[in-house]
Amino acid sequence: MAHIKLNNEQLPGIVGLLDYSPATAKPLLELANVLLRDDSTLTRTEREIIAASVSYRNECHFCHTSHAAAAVANAGADITMIDDIKQGLIDTKVSDKLRALLAIAHHVQQGGRQVTAEDIWLARENGATDKEIHDTVLIAAAFCMYNRYVDGLGTWAPKDNEAYLEMGRNIAEHGYGYSVRQAQIAL
Amino acid sequence: MAHIKLNNEQLPGIVGLLDYSPATAKPLLELANVLLRDDSTLTRTEREIIAASVSYRNECHFCHTSHAAAAVANAGADITMIDDIKQGLIDTKVSDKLRALLAIAHHVQQGGRQVTAEDIWLARENGATDKEIHDTVLIAAAFCMYNRYVDGLGTWAPKDNEAYLEMGRNIAEHGYGYSVRQAQIAL
Repeated sequence: MAHIKLNNEQLPGIVGLLDYSPATAKPLLELANVLLRDDSTLTRTEREIIAASVSYRNECHFCHTSHAAAAVANAGADITMIDDIKQGLIDTKVSDKLRALLAIAHHVQQGGRQVTAEDIWLARENGATDKEIHDTVLIAAAFCMYNRYVDGLGTWAPKDNEAYLEMGRNIAEHGYGYSVRQAQIAL
Repeated sequence: MAHIKLNNEQLPGIVGLLDYSPATAKPLLELANVLLRDDSTLTRTEREIIAASVSYRNECHFCHTSHAAAAVANAGADITMIDDIKQGLIDTKVSDKLRALLAIAHHVQQGGRQVTAEDIWLARENGATDKEIHDTVLIAAAFCMYNRYVDGLGTWAPKDNEAYLEMGRNIAEHGYGYSVRQAQIAL
């Protein structure tokens, strides 16, 4: 049960919080859509992998699994990719550029000052543009917010990876906000 | 010098980043205005203190000092309040409710799972509402994002507290976004 009374206790993770506070939900959802869905030279799969990987390192089960499931849906991959993101992408084929950007994201997760000139140099050597580095830092930073919002208020989350696959497909097809609207209709 | 080429190198901290990336600036500024400026039973001074205190713990000099300066301007306090926020508000008179909410915010800064049932109980005992607890968690979480965005991209920041007083007054008077628009006119 969440730390505060949300009056929508059947909604998991951030979905219940977005329903509870529409005024903050609007910019939070817009930011997710711009960062993870809008046109970019990083694919949607790559951006969801960054989001999921940072969330895993923040121990946010809901955000890790829902964004990993969105990566699965965007990539047309299978469910094993969800756990492979936790293990550092051993079985999933990803570019050296994404690996260098993930190293930046993981340093951002620890703290902004942990990003080094060497991190940036390595990303550029592997073909990352300044905009891609910018977006990677902001995706990682944003998930340090979303993760703390979800867990700082003690929301509940489904345990099994299977429970997130439909959410992942909805995100891939409709973007962020759809699940909240669907939940509000059902309430 | 920032890690990436912003083409606005005279703009400090997040101001240069918001100018560099208007698509993400829009929800980032809207979130700050809703959380720190919109109607709330927490005063603007109290909310800026939470933002500044979390930023200090994230070692983000630009965000700590600019939001502490906004607290100074909102409260009509003097410049010594900026350093007093670093020291845990020894000289500034604040309510027991705000001290309990700051304890929650400081746990959020460490990680969402660090917030305890006791933290929530103590805040309620001191008169905090569920909405105030919600907003405190999200302000703290949001500054874990803004701080990492500012420092993860290696932006520069004025050193002295005095250099932030005008920014604090502009925030108190005009809200978030004003400084970016002024900077864009000047560019």
